[in-house]
Amino acid sequence: MEPFSTIYDSENEILTNYTLHEEKKISDMKGYFINEEAREKIEKEENKVVYKVYKQDVPLIEGELLHCLTCIQPGNVDGQFFMTKGHYHLNEKCAEIYHCLKGDGLLLLQKEDQIKILEFKPNAIAYIPAGWGHRTVNISFTKSLVFFSVWPAQSGYDYERTMKEPFQSSIVKDKESYKIIRR
Amino acid sequence: MEPFSTIYDSENEILTNYTLHEEKKISDMKGYFINEEAREKIEKEENKVVYKVYKQDVPLIEGELLHCLTCIQPGNVDGQFFMTKGHYHLNEKCAEIYHCLKGDGLLLLQKEDQIKILEFKPNAIAYIPAGWGHRTVNISFTKSLVFFSVWPAQSGYDYERTMKEPFQSSIVKDKESYKIIRR
Repeated sequence: MEPFSTIYDSENEILTNYTLHEEKKISDMKGYFINEEAREKIEKEENKVVYKVYKQDVPLIEGELLHCLTCIQPGNVDGQFFMTKGHYHLNEKCAEIYHCLKGDGLLLLQKEDQIKILEFKPNAIAYIPAGWGHRTVNISFTKSLVFFSVWPAQSGYDYERTMKEPFQSSIVKDKESYKIIRR
Repeated sequence: MEPFSTIYDSENEILTNYTLHEEKKISDMKGYFINEEAREKIEKEENKVVYKVYKQDVPLIEGELLHCLTCIQPGNVDGQFFMTKGHYHLNEKCAEIYHCLKGDGLLLLQKEDQIKILEFKPNAIAYIPAGWGHRTVNISFTKSLVFFSVWPAQSGYDYERTMKEPFQSSIVKDKESYKIIRR
């Protein structure tokens, strides 16, 4: 494998030379928001993009590092802010690092009955220890939330556990700001 | 281990809440610059800081991620720009990711007889594959080079190999710019 570099293009909110690009639309988020009926309605009216990711392929073996730019659009489903699906790592030994580049967000972290919510603003660097589920929420009404993440290539994703042990906190509009509610 | 977050303080070029801070001065860089006599002279006159690092402690086991803010001062030793010592990982399976936050630099990469030099400007994200030695050089005459790096906690450092297989390229002043010379 050869060294390579990519550029975070701040204006266009992309990672140049990415090898994988995914968009998660409202239609991909079935069951993730509290008000499923409201989600379905948005899906039918205008199937908006909730978040986009730009990744670079690396071998999925111990020692290599996956890394990704994520861009969560501003928006909400019946007042619940746009967010990532969130996941646990299949390999429970694997941590992750998030670096906020732009916007205004919250990082929801959960491990069994422990809940932690971290502020996630530009220049914040968050350490998600092994075993903690993580989801990011864009709490801005107008701007994207953009962050860069790095995690061990052997981590894997456990989205099923996210459904079985759903995130206990939801972030919803409260006038011009947000509030945290129990799901 | 609990989740935590730190802030990259861009103005002061530090990582808040760091648990480890190191400064490498001219006196710590014996043998690293081509002109050792010139280095000694600077050491006696004014033992300048070459670079500073701010780290967070994490367990040194597979799955955890070390991460660090590095700030290389502007300066040179007889025309050779200030740089990090550079190292190989002891665990040759371990990659590293560098994210340039501020300044103007070059990333020198080396693996056996292969040499690669990457531009390292703000928003550049460089992937250093497993097995490649890496050193960063500040090519600005006036500004610090600041970058954030992430690597597997089990990587270890092999500074000895850096002495046995020294970096083959040196970056030196050339009028208002730089040139690459063979060491």
